[in-house]
Amino acid sequence: MSKLHLDKKIGIIGGGQLGKMMILEAKRMGFYIIILDPDPLCSAHSIADEHIIADFKDRIAIINLAKRCDVLTYELEHINVNALFEVENMGIAVYPTPKSLEIIQNKYKQNKELEKNNVSVPKFMSISSKEDVIKAADTFGLPLMAKSSLGGYDGRGNFLIATIEQSEEVFKILSGEVFVEEYIDFTIEISVLACRGSNGKVKVYPVAQNTHKNEILQETLVPANISDDIKDKAREIAAKTMEIFEGIGMFCIEMFVKKDGNVLVNEIAPRPHNSGHFSIEACITSQFANHIRAISGLPLGDVSLIKAACMHNILGEHGENGKAIIKNAEKALEISGVSLHIYGKKEVREKRKMGHITAIADTVENAQKAAKKAHKLIKIVAEN
Amino acid sequence: MSKLHLDKKIGIIGGGQLGKMMILEAKRMGFYIIILDPDPLCSAHSIADEHIIADFKDRIAIINLAKRCDVLTYELEHINVNALFEVENMGIAVYPTPKSLEIIQNKYKQNKELEKNNVSVPKFMSISSKEDVIKAADTFGLPLMAKSSLGGYDGRGNFLIATIEQSEEVFKILSGEVFVEEYIDFTIEISVLACRGSNGKVKVYPVAQNTHKNEILQETLVPANISDDIKDKAREIAAKTMEIFEGIGMFCIEMFVKKDGNVLVNEIAPRPHNSGHFSIEACITSQFANHIRAISGLPLGDVSLIKAACMHNILGEHGENGKAIIKNAEKALEISGVSLHIYGKKEVREKRKMGHITAIADTVENAQKAAKKAHKLIKIVAEN
Repeated sequence: MSKLHLDKKIGIIGGGQLGKMMILEAKRMGFYIIILDPDPLCSAHSIADEHIIADFKDRIAIINLAKRCDVLTYELEHINVNALFEVENMGIAVYPTPKSLEIIQNKYKQNKELEKNNVSVPKFMSISSKEDVIKAADTFGLPLMAKSSLGGYDGRGNFLIATIEQSEEVFKILSGEVFVEEYIDFTIEISVLACRGSNGKVKVYPVAQNTHKNEILQETLVPANISDDIKDKAREIAAKTMEIFEGIGMFCIEMFVKKDGNVLVNEIAPRPHNSGHFSIEACITSQFANHIRAISGLPLGDVSLIKAACMHNILGEHGENGKAIIKNAEKALEISGVSLHIYGKKEVREKRKMGHITAIADTVENAQKAAKKAHKLIKIVAEN
Repeated sequence: MSKLHLDKKIGIIGGGQLGKMMILEAKRMGFYIIILDPDPLCSAHSIADEHIIADFKDRIAIINLAKRCDVLTYELEHINVNALFEVENMGIAVYPTPKSLEIIQNKYKQNKELEKNNVSVPKFMSISSKEDVIKAADTFGLPLMAKSSLGGYDGRGNFLIATIEQSEEVFKILSGEVFVEEYIDFTIEISVLACRGSNGKVKVYPVAQNTHKNEILQETLVPANISDDIKDKAREIAAKTMEIFEGIGMFCIEMFVKKDGNVLVNEIAPRPHNSGHFSIEACITSQFANHIRAISGLPLGDVSLIKAACMHNILGEHGENGKAIIKNAEKALEISGVSLHIYGKKEVREKRKMGHITAIADTVENAQKAAKKAHKLIKIVAEN
């Protein structure tokens, strides 16, 4: 690409907060954006140039979107991958590639692919009957983490088998193909963001440390509180994963750090990720800016950390249902180093991701203190 | 303000690059944006929630805009200030206030106000005849800088009187009230960005050093290459100016540094400013984020410098007229620390501000090298 038209068009399947934050970076560089999202008032709606209102699995809508674009990307992985293959065959670039998405969409295949390439994953086994579960329990011990191969994110599609009595229950709760993994008694959950440009160059972000509650990300700390050796190992795994999947664009590789220092890949997201939001304030180039650079054929930006960071998700609280109102933003923003991101979702619901706080500071402890203090103040409630 | 509705509405008069960059920050915090701009395809158009297509001086359109907003701001100062007073009288907040804008719009009154408050400005004198010019030349010497009191920006409305023979010509070139200033043989042009919150707290950015060519800003370097004493003096002047004008929002105070170390105020812009674009990448909180925080009643963010920076404007080149195409963006972005901002103007014209480059680095020399290298590569040309 020797010239870049000002009106080069990027299509994004999904107009949630990830799509919105991609657009905020794309617009700085003058790109034209078309989103596809079923919600007419989705987070990205008001800053997209065009919005095709359709389901993420709608083949015809995806093809229509692609025909209007120079490159197609997505902010969520539960989309119609066959439609993406069709688009690619039409000669329109799709990044990350449908080939890598297809593998990642199936968590069992994902594990197989990683195992084949000597990337450590938890021990796993396909199951289709009570007997398989008993066999797995014999081999890996209890508890077992059962996963639907095509399961959802934020823990949907996972089920913890604590006792052998639950070996039938699992098939009632999880649908489709199911597999089990050994239960990992990790010390720390980490994630590593990595981006691969269309020239094959890979940039790996500083390692982030995550805390989940009810399988939803609550807090990210950067740098992670692990040794430099483990950080290097995790970043190597991330770089290797980008090569395996020939990823173009941002990927997030979630990992477990075991007590013995071993690092296992837990999940891969072929897109910018919630645990990478810290990069907006804390890195020279954010995950969203680098995603846009990668998919549009531009070289990647510096991913160095500027300051230590702590990110807290702002979720809808228990019992809050209705038109969303933020309270105490002005108090939270009094705290030094705190930034507030509000996704613009009109309705608050319990556990819905409404926004996030990032605090930056000279130490991760101070960043965490600031984020916690800000988080305690901020309330997203339903209007009475 | 104890609560902040997600759909709080901000009105912006002007939808150029400054309005666009305000919106990119406002959208992060979930604000709803309505712009007023005569150009249906202005830079900010595609990311505004609503766009009222009207002239900046259109009283009725401005009042209609204000009625739909919780707070009104502007990205350019050549607007109908009487309409802003009307809006204020309707009980709708206008920031910066019409009172301060009215003074700033008139460069002669601006000088008077600063002089009254003991802020140094070049010596100046109102002129209305050839005889006045001769008198000024006797008092201040030649050359003299003649200015139209209500004159434009980027040097439009200024005229350098080099010889006494030009003492009539000046009234043909400059219209309306005219005054002259002593010619300042400065060593360095600097600008200081300052922001004042609705709580009266003021944040002053690091001093920037500017280079103009044909009265258009070419390059900004931060930190400025002046002594700490002069920096302190400049920052004090900026803080004082914010108090004098009771500014709420971002202001930019352009100053001359004389050979003897004296600092004189040259011009004030009651808005984010071209010479403050470095703050997007190089400061914890950008001038646009702080402007939005200030006008919406939120506390201001940290303005510390993260890295040294160099900003270059990308202007339309001589002879380029027509549909704009950027060339070599992918080469420029190979340079470490370089960010590219493209404003999305469809048509390139000579000297039109099409975008800018910011390079950040550990030293200002390295930032300048990177920005220069990137600038040499990037071309904005008209499509053949």
